[in-house]
Amino acid sequence: MTQRLTTTAPDFAAAFTDLVDARREADEDVSRDVTAILKAVRANGDAALADYTQRFDHHDLNVTGWAVTAAETRAALDTLSTPLRDALELAAARITAYHEKQRPVDSDGVDSAGVRLGARWSAVDAAGLYVPGGRAAYPSSLLMNVIPAKVAGVQRIAMVTPTPNGEINPLVLAAAQIAGIEEIWRVGGAQAVAALAYGTDRIAPVDVITGPGNAWVAEAKRQLYGVVGIDMVAGPSEIVVVADGRNNPDWIAADLLSQSEHDPTSQSILFTDDAAFADAVDRAVDGRLGQLATEKVARASWAANGAIIIVRDFDEAMPLVNRLAAEHLELAVDDPDALFAKVRHAGSVFLGRMTPEAVGDYVAGPNHVLPTGRRARFSSGLSVLDFMKRTSFLSLNDAAIRAIGPAAVALAQAEGLPAHAASVSLRLT
Amino acid sequence: MTQRLTTTAPDFAAAFTDLVDARREADEDVSRDVTAILKAVRANGDAALADYTQRFDHHDLNVTGWAVTAAETRAALDTLSTPLRDALELAAARITAYHEKQRPVDSDGVDSAGVRLGARWSAVDAAGLYVPGGRAAYPSSLLMNVIPAKVAGVQRIAMVTPTPNGEINPLVLAAAQIAGIEEIWRVGGAQAVAALAYGTDRIAPVDVITGPGNAWVAEAKRQLYGVVGIDMVAGPSEIVVVADGRNNPDWIAADLLSQSEHDPTSQSILFTDDAAFADAVDRAVDGRLGQLATEKVARASWAANGAIIIVRDFDEAMPLVNRLAAEHLELAVDDPDALFAKVRHAGSVFLGRMTPEAVGDYVAGPNHVLPTGRRARFSSGLSVLDFMKRTSFLSLNDAAIRAIGPAAVALAQAEGLPAHAASVSLRLT
Repeated sequence: MTQRLTTTAPDFAAAFTDLVDARREADEDVSRDVTAILKAVRANGDAALADYTQRFDHHDLNVTGWAVTAAETRAALDTLSTPLRDALELAAARITAYHEKQRPVDSDGVDSAGVRLGARWSAVDAAGLYVPGGRAAYPSSLLMNVIPAKVAGVQRIAMVTPTPNGEINPLVLAAAQIAGIEEIWRVGGAQAVAALAYGTDRIAPVDVITGPGNAWVAEAKRQLYGVVGIDMVAGPSEIVVVADGRNNPDWIAADLLSQSEHDPTSQSILFTDDAAFADAVDRAVDGRLGQLATEKVARASWAANGAIIIVRDFDEAMPLVNRLAAEHLELAVDDPDALFAKVRHAGSVFLGRMTPEAVGDYVAGPNHVLPTGRRARFSSGLSVLDFMKRTSFLSLNDAAIRAIGPAAVALAQAEGLPAHAASVSLRLT
Repeated sequence: MTQRLTTTAPDFAAAFTDLVDARREADEDVSRDVTAILKAVRANGDAALADYTQRFDHHDLNVTGWAVTAAETRAALDTLSTPLRDALELAAARITAYHEKQRPVDSDGVDSAGVRLGARWSAVDAAGLYVPGGRAAYPSSLLMNVIPAKVAGVQRIAMVTPTPNGEINPLVLAAAQIAGIEEIWRVGGAQAVAALAYGTDRIAPVDVITGPGNAWVAEAKRQLYGVVGIDMVAGPSEIVVVADGRNNPDWIAADLLSQSEHDPTSQSILFTDDAAFADAVDRAVDGRLGQLATEKVARASWAANGAIIIVRDFDEAMPLVNRLAAEHLELAVDDPDALFAKVRHAGSVFLGRMTPEAVGDYVAGPNHVLPTGRRARFSSGLSVLDFMKRTSFLSLNDAAIRAIGPAAVALAQAEGLPAHAASVSLRLT
């Protein structure tokens, strides 16, 4: 069972505000620990990495090896079942095709004042990818992080991943092989992020670090923001489903549970204009829960953070949906485009009854690294642009500096910056 | 006098590495103070703002007024001299024209598998602009921050600025009037950033905060990154000039000093292949320094952080220039495009002998908020994109889910996520 809200109830506004403001992100105070780890890796490099790996992952890098070998990744791919290999390759091809359309366009032109103006995009030299060990080691996440970097034209991609007791998920290695990653280090945690940012004798520094991780990894990225570029802070996964009564309740129940099963802090919310359908979905969720291998997590999430919200109509729903600014938004209605036109904030939108969110997690093409925790108000999913930067440029000739230079001189003088003024005025005489 | 390096010297590699690695950013430990201020504003809202303003800016907001009135901004513009008003209006028009070309293009199409895929860009609802008080209160910075937000289509722009003893720079107000800012709060420091991020009774929260500030403001933005979007961490200004011997040494001296006069931590570096020209520039800098109202700052910066680097030729210079990844790069040669083709990292590039960097600070059009401290390796100048976010979308019909759904099911099962698999497989039966 989950909580049920109805917009006609007198306490709805307050209850919905509580839902919007509920904090599901852990407030673990790891910042002091992380600061110490970053400092140690910066000072002692590989020796610090070996120490932390021994302490946290219980293996000796000088015995197990610092890097995963090319033979290991090739072997992981070779032992994969054909359907799984085909699925990963289809996913990689479709993700590549979608991201290729994100490549930005340069500009270069001369305006009416004779000023040549433009912008040129280029890839960063090197990107670092964090891949978690254990339960959350998803080959799909690896593809979603690496492919935008490859499409951007990044020449070097360095992956780091913890290998507790020396063990590594072969599915992740197979995905790395498909994605063409040639540099994989057996280090994890804040220490691995520090190594990527500062560099060590073995690991050359990178310019951008992306990829999911635990609270230590997230805090390390936050502290190193500015030393390197990072992707947006990631919180628990979430889905909002807007569905009328003409949907199959079992399908919608599965969609809701596909987020609930990620983590007890995940959130799944259904908006519907049909109270009987709401009952049917609630029953279907209860029925499905017992069949899931992920039952414990999904049940905890659905009970603590799930919600079913009964609205008079979808015109009433959409402003509420926008306040939630969800990572994933399904519009399971006959005319989803009419509702989509009213969406102001969402990470990714799934249009119509045959577009379950999970298809976007794997093979559709758009990135599944998306803003959570209402951050879709101001941020976007991972893209090719996260691995590129733009250089603006400018060229003036005699006529152009005569046209716009005097205004620059006036403003520089007004701001009390005489050398700025002189650098222009000298060229005007 | 400044330091002189020569690539043919035996110790050049080490000396240049020192120059690249030199840290010019203050390491002020303000993080604990800032954490306390953010907490107080979050808990006590306007009361905390009034307290801090009394303590730091020495005026009572309930007496001086919380907001600058529309009459005040209009009056500031009306009292401006005509040349200065014309200069600000030319700057605003040209900055607007340049940024309008940055508006991103949406995509929407159906691929060969029958999957509809796209991306839609939209503006954030509200942006907050920090404008410093005192010496660094530059109307040009106000325009450079507000105009991209306006071009993005941001509906609400809230400006905050400290008014020590209640006083405000009329030139900044005039620029605010030209830029069409209608909401200006007389608060500054970390407390103002907190108010913009969390909201108070008077000040509604925003989604993105940009604009320069002191160490407290920068740390507040850093701590609130994720609650809101922010612009990149900004450090001391810097310029690299690549010039052959056929330049006027006095012009190049003025260009170098235009960065040196910003702050003692600013950096100006000349690369030239002509030792006699290097001497002439050095002399010209010394000569100009004594004439500057900003002499003290410029002299300190040039002595501590300036450098003249003699190279054999510009092929040798460009890899060194790329290691510096400078905020501003002037290429004062006959064929600047040939050198520009070799530039991998720079915030903004100024091509040819008639393109002093200062023209870009004010009226050329490209943004002057640019990555500093080697961050051009991975980040870009402020743009329209900083005030927008992208929503990806997806739509499948029966045929499309049959084409790509089975691969999603296989991957979900392999990742141990049965509800993900079910949400797709139910629709395949």
